[in-house]
Amino acid sequence: MEYIQVSAPATIGNIGPGFDVLGLAIRHWGDRLEARKTDQGVSIAAVNSTVGGSELSKDPDKNTAGIAAKQTLKLLGIDQGVELVLHKGLPMGSGLGSSAASAVAAAFAVNELYDRPLTKEELILPATLAEEKVSGGFFADNTAPALLGGATLTRSCMPLDVTRIGCIENLIVILVTPDIVVLTREARELLPKTVPMEDFIFNMANTSLITAAFSKNDYSLFARSLNDVVVEPVRSKLIAGFDEVKKNALKAGADGMAISGSGPTVFAITDTPKRARFIEDAMVRTFALHGIRSMSLITEVDPEGARVIETQ
Amino acid sequence: MEYIQVSAPATIGNIGPGFDVLGLAIRHWGDRLEARKTDQGVSIAAVNSTVGGSELSKDPDKNTAGIAAKQTLKLLGIDQGVELVLHKGLPMGSGLGSSAASAVAAAFAVNELYDRPLTKEELILPATLAEEKVSGGFFADNTAPALLGGATLTRSCMPLDVTRIGCIENLIVILVTPDIVVLTREARELLPKTVPMEDFIFNMANTSLITAAFSKNDYSLFARSLNDVVVEPVRSKLIAGFDEVKKNALKAGADGMAISGSGPTVFAITDTPKRARFIEDAMVRTFALHGIRSMSLITEVDPEGARVIETQ
Repeated sequence: MEYIQVSAPATIGNIGPGFDVLGLAIRHWGDRLEARKTDQGVSIAAVNSTVGGSELSKDPDKNTAGIAAKQTLKLLGIDQGVELVLHKGLPMGSGLGSSAASAVAAAFAVNELYDRPLTKEELILPATLAEEKVSGGFFADNTAPALLGGATLTRSCMPLDVTRIGCIENLIVILVTPDIVVLTREARELLPKTVPMEDFIFNMANTSLITAAFSKNDYSLFARSLNDVVVEPVRSKLIAGFDEVKKNALKAGADGMAISGSGPTVFAITDTPKRARFIEDAMVRTFALHGIRSMSLITEVDPEGARVIETQ
Repeated sequence: MEYIQVSAPATIGNIGPGFDVLGLAIRHWGDRLEARKTDQGVSIAAVNSTVGGSELSKDPDKNTAGIAAKQTLKLLGIDQGVELVLHKGLPMGSGLGSSAASAVAAAFAVNELYDRPLTKEELILPATLAEEKVSGGFFADNTAPALLGGATLTRSCMPLDVTRIGCIENLIVILVTPDIVVLTREARELLPKTVPMEDFIFNMANTSLITAAFSKNDYSLFARSLNDVVVEPVRSKLIAGFDEVKKNALKAGADGMAISGSGPTVFAITDTPKRARFIEDAMVRTFALHGIRSMSLITEVDPEGARVIETQ
């Protein structure tokens, strides 16, 4: 194999209350990446985008795809290189794991191109190291689901301990990305240093029930557990109109709404296809009432994660 | 049916990091209860014990069995009564849900005796109300697993929202109850009022992985997630020798050790039958080195919870 084309999905970090623990891969938005064997080093020939803004660096040391490719080659101990063409297919800076999708696509492509010596689980390390270089934190809540698909649980980052917990097949996710800039770093600085005991128990209980929901493929458990009293109250302040958007999403029939990662994307959930459009409409229009344009997507869980599209 | 004999198992509250959230039913220790229809009211004819100390009150307003029987009759709207004979089969004040087992046995027996109008899930309320009267707190982490069997997850106490998450069939639990008095009230007072953010994430992640382990019947997930940095550090101080007992349990091959409920019982886990005796021995002997006698039991998960033994 000389050439491979792969994809890696957008991901929802935290899944509401599961801060730094849970992550979820979703369909339809994601990155595509072409990789071709070269004699030496990592280069990025082009960065294209179908979602506006292809301002990402082609410097392989500044783009997570380039960094992840380098990390993976190093881990494989291979003295050859790759040339990458990255096709961004999810909004950047949206809280949907854009940089993680690129990192995962590159790590996955390099590993496949060089005969798959590593498992997907083992690729979480080089992909997350790439994420760390651009985000400043070593967190697997986007890289792990982008690789493994479904919902993932990060028990520990040091040592890295990630488990794919499963999928909810009839879950419908309504994503709305308002045209607001939220810096991950700023969103992290807002976090409380301590958590009241009762809030700790509340979030732990809800996160555990979400884990059971994905483990058992049982939407009814997820429907009542998308509740976060620790992070949402502070981070939602960075998203104008959040409280009203949530209120109207629930009124329109959503079983819950939360922030994806550090935002500004928010997501609502239902298992009823005909309700999804009404929920989407309520959310988009409520943002519009606050003078905020938004992109939206009705999607579902991506059970597979990073995958091969084509090889030559 | 005029007469019924039922049993309800001992339970491990919290299962390590899952404070006030998780609970687990175990085999071999538990209460038996005989109940006979009467015209009116609730009376307790006798309280027997096979585990030392039958000093429990026969006043139906002071014994959780009596209180739960009254609550259940009230819930059923039945203008008849029961006479109870309680056989305690688990150590009291040990952190193994002794009062919950009695409450559950009584609620379950009354419901069966009067033609089972309520589900086991619906009996959690009267049983937990009885628990509350003697413990001062409304917590379902012992009553829920004693009723439903397996591991349970309490997402919320108000409104009551409990889910049976499953069972790990090859889990072996080594229980050791040292001869130490720990008052639940005192153990509660020790609890921190706030939790550092990183400890919150740590316990939430481990509790979620325990949830996945029981949801998937996968011991390997449980083996690495029995870790608590929030409650164990303070509560273990009430148990002389705790740190050394834990160290020696792990040295003997246990995959983890934690406090059951508010203690003083501790429990270690393994999936290897021949290791269990060595772990038990290490734990009992380490307590003995601290001058503390203990009772011990090698057991497994009770997947069924409250059950009928005999009817007439």
